[in-house]
Amino acid sequence: MGMVGGGRGAFIGAVHRMAARLDGEIDLVAGCFSSDAAKSKASGADFFIDPARVYASYAEMAQAEAALPTDQRIDFVSVVTRNNTHFAVAKAFLEAGIHVVCDKPLCFTLAEGRKLRTLVQKSGLVFALTHNYTGYPMVKEARSWVRCGKLGKLLKVIVEYPQGYAITALESAADTKISNWRMDPSIAGLSNCMGDIGTHAHNLARYITGLEIEEICAELSTFIPGRPLDDDGNCLLRFTGGAKGILFASQVSSGDENNLNIRVYGTKGSLEWHQENPNELAFKRADAPPTISRRGNSYLSAAAQGATRTPFAHPEGFIEAFANVYRAAATAIADQVAGRKAPKEGYDFPTVDDGIAGLAFIESAVKSSQRGAKWVKFPKI
Amino acid sequence: MGMVGGGRGAFIGAVHRMAARLDGEIDLVAGCFSSDAAKSKASGADFFIDPARVYASYAEMAQAEAALPTDQRIDFVSVVTRNNTHFAVAKAFLEAGIHVVCDKPLCFTLAEGRKLRTLVQKSGLVFALTHNYTGYPMVKEARSWVRCGKLGKLLKVIVEYPQGYAITALESAADTKISNWRMDPSIAGLSNCMGDIGTHAHNLARYITGLEIEEICAELSTFIPGRPLDDDGNCLLRFTGGAKGILFASQVSSGDENNLNIRVYGTKGSLEWHQENPNELAFKRADAPPTISRRGNSYLSAAAQGATRTPFAHPEGFIEAFANVYRAAATAIADQVAGRKAPKEGYDFPTVDDGIAGLAFIESAVKSSQRGAKWVKFPKI
Amino acid sequence: MGMVGGGRGAFIGAVHRMAARLDGEIDLVAGCFSSDAAKSKASGADFFIDPARVYASYAEMAQAEAALPTDQRIDFVSVVTRNNTHFAVAKAFLEAGIHVVCDKPLCFTLAEGRKLRTLVQKSGLVFALTHNYTGYPMVKEARSWVRCGKLGKLLKVIVEYPQGYAITALESAADTKISNWRMDPSIAGLSNCMGDIGTHAHNLARYITGLEIEEICAELSTFIPGRPLDDDGNCLLRFTGGAKGILFASQVSSGDENNLNIRVYGTKGSLEWHQENPNELAFKRADAPPTISRRGNSYLSAAAQGATRTPFAHPEGFIEAFANVYRAAATAIADQVAGRKAPKEGYDFPTVDDGIAGLAFIESAVKSSQRGAKWVKFPKI
Amino acid sequence: MGMVGGGRGAFIGAVHRMAARLDGEIDLVAGCFSSDAAKSKASGADFFIDPARVYASYAEMAQAEAALPTDQRIDFVSVVTRNNTHFAVAKAFLEAGIHVVCDKPLCFTLAEGRKLRTLVQKSGLVFALTHNYTGYPMVKEARSWVRCGKLGKLLKVIVEYPQGYAITALESAADTKISNWRMDPSIAGLSNCMGDIGTHAHNLARYITGLEIEEICAELSTFIPGRPLDDDGNCLLRFTGGAKGILFASQVSSGDENNLNIRVYGTKGSLEWHQENPNELAFKRADAPPTISRRGNSYLSAAAQGATRTPFAHPEGFIEAFANVYRAAATAIADQVAGRKAPKEGYDFPTVDDGIAGLAFIESAVKSSQRGAKWVKFPKI
Repeated sequence: MGMVGGGRGAFIGAVHRMAARLDGEIDLVAGCFSSDAAKSKASGADFFIDPARVYASYAEMAQAEAALPTDQRIDFVSVVTRNNTHFAVAKAFLEAGIHVVCDKPLCFTLAEGRKLRTLVQKSGLVFALTHNYTGYPMVKEARSWVRCGKLGKLLKVIVEYPQGYAITALESAADTKISNWRMDPSIAGLSNCMGDIGTHAHNLARYITGLEIEEICAELSTFIPGRPLDDDGNCLLRFTGGAKGILFASQVSSGDENNLNIRVYGTKGSLEWHQENPNELAFKRADAPPTISRRGNSYLSAAAQGATRTPFAHPEGFIEAFANVYRAAATAIADQVAGRKAPKEGYDFPTVDDGIAGLAFIESAVKSSQRGAKWVKFPKI
Repeated sequence: MGMVGGGRGAFIGAVHRMAARLDGEIDLVAGCFSSDAAKSKASGADFFIDPARVYASYAEMAQAEAALPTDQRIDFVSVVTRNNTHFAVAKAFLEAGIHVVCDKPLCFTLAEGRKLRTLVQKSGLVFALTHNYTGYPMVKEARSWVRCGKLGKLLKVIVEYPQGYAITALESAADTKISNWRMDPSIAGLSNCMGDIGTHAHNLARYITGLEIEEICAELSTFIPGRPLDDDGNCLLRFTGGAKGILFASQVSSGDENNLNIRVYGTKGSLEWHQENPNELAFKRADAPPTISRRGNSYLSAAAQGATRTPFAHPEGFIEAFANVYRAAATAIADQVAGRKAPKEGYDFPTVDDGIAGLAFIESAVKSSQRGAKWVKFPKI
Repeated sequence: MGMVGGGRGAFIGAVHRMAARLDGEIDLVAGCFSSDAAKSKASGADFFIDPARVYASYAEMAQAEAALPTDQRIDFVSVVTRNNTHFAVAKAFLEAGIHVVCDKPLCFTLAEGRKLRTLVQKSGLVFALTHNYTGYPMVKEARSWVRCGKLGKLLKVIVEYPQGYAITALESAADTKISNWRMDPSIAGLSNCMGDIGTHAHNLARYITGLEIEEICAELSTFIPGRPLDDDGNCLLRFTGGAKGILFASQVSSGDENNLNIRVYGTKGSLEWHQENPNELAFKRADAPPTISRRGNSYLSAAAQGATRTPFAHPEGFIEAFANVYRAAATAIADQVAGRKAPKEGYDFPTVDDGIAGLAFIESAVKSSQRGAKWVKFPKI
Repeated sequence: MGMVGGGRGAFIGAVHRMAARLDGEIDLVAGCFSSDAAKSKASGADFFIDPARVYASYAEMAQAEAALPTDQRIDFVSVVTRNNTHFAVAKAFLEAGIHVVCDKPLCFTLAEGRKLRTLVQKSGLVFALTHNYTGYPMVKEARSWVRCGKLGKLLKVIVEYPQGYAITALESAADTKISNWRMDPSIAGLSNCMGDIGTHAHNLARYITGLEIEEICAELSTFIPGRPLDDDGNCLLRFTGGAKGILFASQVSSGDENNLNIRVYGTKGSLEWHQENPNELAFKRADAPPTISRRGNSYLSAAAQGATRTPFAHPEGFIEAFANVYRAAATAIADQVAGRKAPKEGYDFPTVDDGIAGLAFIESAVKSSQRGAKWVKFPKI
C-alpha cells in the first residue's frame, strides 16, 4: 500500500501502519507523508521506503503509481491527512484507478461527501473508511445479537464518548493539546467534538443496531472560552421505527480517557460494551443473571471469532481492531484484483455510505444546536 | 414514632421501619397501616403494636395521638402512603402538632406541594422527605468535594436511573408488576417513571452539585402500549450558571436493576458514583491516576464519616442509607423537643423545599414532553 | 435478649445490637456490658435499658434473669466478650437454662470448646455462633450450587482474607490499632491473625463446600517485629475426598480492607464471591459466558431469597448478613419456646460444631507452623 | 529474522510473527517452520518467504544463513519449537554466530539450561527469552514502583495463574485440548502445568519484585485421571530476605481463561495487576484511597511510557506486550551489529539467566511435590 499523510510524529498515521502491517499481508511501499517535501522524504526513510517512491505531492504520487506496472504499483492508498483534504486526495487516487482506505470523517462537508460517493460508485473501486471501533470483535458480536433478535425489538440506545484531554487548557496558557487543527474550522469543519468523536459514537450505534436517526435535538457547548468550535455535545435522538436515544460526547470531561460506551435496550434484553474494556460484552435481561461474553471463545458468533487473532484472555486492543478494518478492505481489494466475486454477505468494513451518514450526523447536530437545540430532521443518507 | 400506610406486604413501609429501628433510638408505637381497618389491625399485631394505638384512619390517629400526654404520644409520624394522599395525611399531623417524615414525591402536584410548604413553615415543625439515596455516605462525600472546590467549576452532570422491572409486561399478559398504582394517573400523578425514579435522579444531582435547573427539554416515552403514563424519559438540562446536563430514567431498560448513577464533571476533576456499588466514589482528573475513595476510611469528610456505622469494607447498603435520613430527622426533632438550637450548618436530610423542587421537575418534564420535547423554563422553587 | 460485653465503644457489640434489632422481633432488655460495673451501667443507659436489669457481672445476670418469670426474662443472651471468657460466660447462661448466641472464636482452646459442646448438648438449648459471613444471601446461593451439583465434583478451593489495618504500626510508635488484646496470647489464644480472621475464611469455605480439611501445611508469620503473635499466615490444604486448597489471611496486607474472597473450582464449573461486593456471585465454566448472579432475584435459590430484605440492587451489606444469623437463631429459639419441632432441613446458623471446627483449624495451623510448616493431620471435629 | 518452528496452525509462532512485525523494523525472511519439510515449505509460502530460504532442517538453515553475506543473512533467529528441542536449535544458531530469540521454557532440564548459558556467554551474542508477560507497560510500571521504594520493604507476594482449558477432558472422550505434547514428558519435561504457566507466574513475580526464592513447598496435582503430568499446583514460597509468597497455577480451574494475577505487599503499600485487564495497575495503602494507574499517561515511569504505542485508553494487549520483548531484543542486536555500547541501565528483555531461574523453579517444585510437599532449597541460579 501507499500512504498520504502520517509523517513523523503523526499519531493516527502510525496506528494505520501498525494496523496494516499486523497480519503480514500488507507492506507499505510508497507514500507522500507530508505536504512538506523534506519531511515526507525523512519520514519515508524512517519507514524504510524506496526513496524513488516517496513523493512530494499526492497528485504526483497518484500519477506515478498509476503509471507503474500492475504488479509493482500500490494496490491501495491509505489517506490519513486532515479532514479538509480527504476529498481531493481520495479523488486523485480513485481517478488513477487506485483503491482507497480513508480516515474519518469522510470529507469536509456533507455535500463534498456526496460528490465523493458518486466518484466511488463510478470507479467501481473499493473505498473503506476507518471507523475503527467497529473492528472490535465484541462489537461484531453485539451486532450479531441485534441481527439474530436476541434483544427483541430495540427501544433505546445510549451511546457516549467522554474524553477529558482538552480540559487542561483552562489551567495553562499553553493550550497545545486542543489548539491544534481540530479546533480550526477551516480544517476540521463545522464541529470539533462531534466531528472528531461524536461521529465515532454515531457510527458505533448504527453499526450495532442498524437504526437510522430520523430527528435529532443537539446542544453543542464550548466550555473553554475562546475556542472557535464545540468541545462538548449532548443529543436526544429519535430513530426510524420508534426507538429513542441519547448520544453525548465531550473533550472536557476531566479525567475520562477514551470512554466510548454503548448500551442498547430491547424488549428481550440489553447489551453493554465499553471500549476501554473491549474484550467483554454484557447481556442483561429480566429474570436471569447477566452474562459476560468474552472475546476468543467458541460460543461467539462467526463474525466475532473471525475478527480475533489470539485465544481468549490474551487481550486484544485498539491496534487489532483497527487491523480488522484493513484486513476486510484488503480482502475486498484482493478479490477484485483476482476477479473473485464478493461473498454474498458482503464485506465487513465501513464504506463511503457510512461516511455520508457521519457527515449528516455532524451537520444535523450543528444545525439543531444553532437553532437553540430544536429538533431537526435528519437528512437522507 | 407512628406510621401511616405500610401495612402487610408493602415494600417501602418495611424499609422505613427497618431504617427507623436500626440505631435503637426510634420505636414504632402507633399506626394506621391501611385504609382498611382490619388490615391495619392485623399489621399492627405483626409489628407488636399496642392494639389501642392501631387506628382505623389517619385523622383519628392524628387526633388521638395529639391528645396523649407529651411523653407518651408519638414524636413524629412516618407517612408511607400513595402519592395522592401525602398532602392530606401530612396536613393532619402538622395541624396536630406532630413532626412528619414523608415518602417522596412530596405531593400529588406542585401546587399542592406549595400549600404543604406553607403549612410546614407555619407549624415550625420538622418535615423530612425520604429521598433516601442522599443518605449514602459516599454521596455525602461527593457533595463535600463539590463544596470544597475539589472539582473546580462544574461543567456537566450526567445522572441516570435505568431499571428494567416493567419490561416483562410485553412478554406476559399478567402485567402485575407495573399495572399497579404507579401507572394510575389518579394516584401517581402526571408521570410514572419521572415521578417514581426520575425525581430521585434529580434530587441526587441537586444534592451533590447544588445546581438548579434553569431550562429542561424532556422526551417521555411509553414503550409498552396501553400504559396511561410514561415508562421512560430522556432530558437535556441547562443549569443556572452555565453547566449542562443529561438526566434519563427508565423502567423498561431490560435487565437493569436499580442502576442509579451520577457523573459530575468540573474544570479540575470529575466524580462518579454508582448506587449499586455504593461504598465507592471515584475521582478522576487529568494527569494523575484516578482514585477510588471507600466508605469508612479516615480520609473521608466528616459528613461521610458521620453517616457510617461499620468499619471500611464491612459493606453498608440501602437500609443504612435510609436510616441516615431517619437519624438526621430524629436529631432535629430531638433538638426541638429538648429546646436545643439547630447546629449552624443545619441538618442533613431532605426537606419540603427539596420536595417542591422534585415536583417542579416532574411537572416541567411532562410539560416539555407534551410540547414535543421543547425547552421549557423551570419554575421558581 | 440480653448481652454480655459490648459496652460503649466496642465495635462488634454495636453490630450485634443493630443486627438483632433489624427485623423488629428482638429487643435488648438486659445486659452486663462491661466487667467494670460503672461502664456497664453507663452503657445500659445509652441503650435505654431498665437500670434494674443492667448487671455488674455475668454470673449475677445469669442468676437474676433465670429467676424472672418466663415471660419476663430474656429468651437468650448474646456473648460478645473477649475470646478467653466465652466459655465461662456461655456456661453460666446454659446452666441457667438460657439460650446463647456467641461471638467467634468459640472458646480459648479446642479442649475448652469440646467441653462447651458437651454442655450445649446436655442442655438441649440453642447455641449459635456468629460466623456472620455465612449470613450473606449470595454465600447461601453458593452453598446451594455446590449442594445441587452445579459445580460437579469439587477440585480446588482458594479462600483468602487479607487486611492491612495492622501494617501502620511499622511507621508509627503508637501501635494502637494492633497493640490491643488480639495480640495478647492470654486473651486471644494461640493465634492473632488465624484466630481473628483465618477462622472466618475457614468457616466460609466449609459452609459453601461442605469439605473438611484432612491435612494442613501452614506457615504463620509475624512481620511486625515485637509482636507476640502472628499477623499473617499462608496454608496449603488437603480436603477429605481429594480436593486441594489454599487459605491465606493477613493483617499486614497494606491497603486491603476486609478482603475476604473465595473461589471454588469443580469439574463442571467454578464460583467466585467477594465479601466487599457481597451482592454478586460469579459462575464460570468452559464454553459458556460467565454469569453474575445478583441478590434479590427470583432466579436464586430459596435459601438466598429467604435471606434477603430488599429488592434486587437495593444493596444489602454486613449488618443484614449478621442479622440473618440472629434471625435464624431466634427462629430456633422461638420454635423451642413454642414447643414446635425443628424443620426437617434444620436451621441455617453456625453451631457449636462449627466452633469446634474453627478451633481445630487454629490449633492445627499453629502446630504446623511451629514445626516449620510441615503437614499435620487435622483433628476429628 | 528467521524462524524455527511455528508453521501453519501453530498458535505461538503466529504470535511471534505478529509481535516481531508490529513496529515495522523486523521482517521475516527465512525459516524452517516444521520438521516436516513439505509443511515447512507450505508455511514459508503462506508467509511470503523466498522459497530458497525455506529450509528442511534447522541445522541446514543455521549453516546456510551463516554462509550468506552479513547484509543479507538473518540478524537473528526466533526459536518457537517444542521444549525438548530448544537447546539443540539455539546451540546451532549460536555456533553459527546468529543471535537468538527463544520461547520459554529455556530448555528441557536445568542442566541443559546451564550448558546453554555457557554457550551464550562464550558467544557474546544476544539471547532473549520470550517471557512475554513482562512486556506489558503496567508490569514495567509495577517494577519501577518496587525499585523506587514506593511499596517499602516487601513482605508478601501472591501470584496466580489459573486456567480452565484442560478441564473439559473429564466430560468428553476427545481430550484434544490437553492430550497434546504439553502432557508428554518426553517433550514437555518434568511438568506440564508448572512448566507451561507456573513458570510465567514465577518470572512475573521475579521481574516485578526482584526477589529470589530461597525455599519452596509445592504440591502438584493431576486432577484428571490418566494424565502423565500435573495439571495443577500450589506452592508456598520463602524469599531471600524474609518475604513470603504463594504461587499457584492450574489448567483445570473451570471457566478461568488466562487469569494471571499478581499482588505484592510491602510496608508502605501494595500493588495489584491482572493480565486480563493489563492496562491498569492498582496501588493501595493505609489511610489514602487506592489509585488506579492507567497505561499511556504522562504520570507513569519512563519504562512504562517507553513500552507503549497508543495513547491512554486505546487499549493495548497481548501482542503489543510480546512485541516489546522483540523490540528490546532487536535494539540490543542492532546495537551490537552497529558496534554501539549497551546503555548503562541494560536492556529490558528476559535473558538466559531468567530461563535458568525458570528451570530451577520447575525442578524445585517437582522435587518438593514428589517428597510429599516438603520444603526444599531453591538451587543457585
